[in-house]
Amino acid sequence: MDLLEKKKQELHDRGITCRIAGVASRRMGWQANPNGLNPADIAAQVSSAVSSVPPVSPVVRPFPKVKTWLAAAQADVLFEATSLNVESGQPAVDHIRAALEHGVHAITANKGPIVHAYRELRDLAAKQGKKFLFESTVMDGVPIFSFFDQLPAVHLQGFHGILNSTTNVILSQMEHGLSFDEALKKAQELGVAETDATHDIDGWDAAVKTAALVTVLMDVPIRLDQIARDGIRDLTPQAVRNAKRDGWPFKLVCRAKRVGKEVHASVAPEKVRVGEPMARISGTSSYVYFETDLFPGLAITEENPGLYATAYGLFADFLRAVS
Amino acid sequence: MDLLEKKKQELHDRGITCRIAGVASRRMGWQANPNGLNPADIAAQVSSAVSSVPPVSPVVRPFPKVKTWLAAAQADVLFEATSLNVESGQPAVDHIRAALEHGVHAITANKGPIVHAYRELRDLAAKQGKKFLFESTVMDGVPIFSFFDQLPAVHLQGFHGILNSTTNVILSQMEHGLSFDEALKKAQELGVAETDATHDIDGWDAAVKTAALVTVLMDVPIRLDQIARDGIRDLTPQAVRNAKRDGWPFKLVCRAKRVGKEVHASVAPEKVRVGEPMARISGTSSYVYFETDLFPGLAITEENPGLYATAYGLFADFLRAVS
Repeated sequence: MDLLEKKKQELHDRGITCRIAGVASRRMGWQANPNGLNPADIAAQVSSAVSSVPPVSPVVRPFPKVKTWLAAAQADVLFEATSLNVESGQPAVDHIRAALEHGVHAITANKGPIVHAYRELRDLAAKQGKKFLFESTVMDGVPIFSFFDQLPAVHLQGFHGILNSTTNVILSQMEHGLSFDEALKKAQELGVAETDATHDIDGWDAAVKTAALVTVLMDVPIRLDQIARDGIRDLTPQAVRNAKRDGWPFKLVCRAKRVGKEVHASVAPEKVRVGEPMARISGTSSYVYFETDLFPGLAITEENPGLYATAYGLFADFLRAVS
Repeated sequence: MDLLEKKKQELHDRGITCRIAGVASRRMGWQANPNGLNPADIAAQVSSAVSSVPPVSPVVRPFPKVKTWLAAAQADVLFEATSLNVESGQPAVDHIRAALEHGVHAITANKGPIVHAYRELRDLAAKQGKKFLFESTVMDGVPIFSFFDQLPAVHLQGFHGILNSTTNVILSQMEHGLSFDEALKKAQELGVAETDATHDIDGWDAAVKTAALVTVLMDVPIRLDQIARDGIRDLTPQAVRNAKRDGWPFKLVCRAKRVGKEVHASVAPEKVRVGEPMARISGTSSYVYFETDLFPGLAITEENPGLYATAYGLFADFLRAVS
């Protein structure tokens, strides 16, 4: 909402007006008003909800609520922002499917639906003449997927990179002498790591991002259990400091490579030589190096993303959908 | 033409058929056939032309030939590939203007028209409902301009990078002990430098690329005489080798920065610290680091572009125009 306010002039210049026609969350329930909800009211509800005791049954039931709610809101665009469900991608998949079936553009910051239902949702969106967009899922709001839309007829053979900020911040902090727990706490204070950072530390987040890139950009659906996955939990502060001192700092590296009709993919801590671009990626920065048929090496680096980087991904998807 | 052949299947899959309806060059004159010229014949003419003595009057007269020729060819797309005219951007500007006025998409590999007539040609293209595309002008075929199309409402504050391959190859070779002349010869043998490499060595090519990025991506037209420009001619092999040895290798660096309503831009050899990403950009690789309001640092690296990288830029523009 902040970003919509910040970029008001740009929206106006593009002839776009928008209002929040509905909002739904575990604590706020399903609210809809086709004439627009008051952003200040929503913000107040969000902050009071955060400080209040969670209700007894915090599960969002997706059906038939979603469609009823979409109909009540008369919305044109759905922003899906439930948290990642590694096993099934739910309830995000159901939300997005419902939106597209209802004739509403679906924009998500959730990687689950890409890993669990990309082809179905892509094809459904095409059939409905609506957009299914997810640019904020990998590398904050950097338009990685859209970049490849601008590389028509180029074949991606593989990639490697650093895509998880939490582990990268933890490793950077451990290099500076902090213990694992202190480093994790620091990452949480910085707002990078969530209270339960298991998904990050054990490499799940990086694996899901890898799967999303493989599925969309290499056009090979890959299950998470097909990705060799190792986290940073077993790295001792001493090992991390020694590696840094020796000029081979540890990084949690994502890799994918096309082998015949398959893609082999992995997430694991690696010692990276200090001259390599990945060795410079510290803190919340991220990096991905693509190997393609016409461009042997094409890399994108995002240094110290701003406060609004992820929100920007959703905002830019909104512009893509409605422009 | 090779690339069109290589990517035939992709064109077919997209429902695109194409033929060469016309060709024009100083040596081959103006040829047109709406039913298609034979690519093998054209290739034969090109190679015989290369080995033959140039005609007495090698100047292409743009008018009224261009429109007559376009009409005879009944073409949908013009590829403009005359060589760079730093002073006026001609005759490329006239060719592109004629194509757009004639209702033909204009694709160019020539940076001149961007520096000398970007706004006019962009607005003319919009008015005519045709495309004016130039993705192969900077960083070979890497879709730099299109990448920013995917960053809507983002404001570019400045950039720096290495955008000229010839000087970068020469500097890399001088670091390996070659004299300036030997290094230049090597760059020519590699097919990177032209016979007359003055434009590269004196920083003109880098300045024109800088001007193109400023004009298009920062939306501030800048004249070449507003760019502080210094080439690599005065660097001695010893200075280049010493700098490399000391961990501060010389690079020809392009810079631009928004200052109020203006943009300050420069091209000059700089010593770059070895830990910096630019220090790793050697040979034909290139690099650009963008500073934007929402993404403080967004960098694109192109390592060792393939044989078809520049041709790909034209090919991808063709797909953008006709898809």
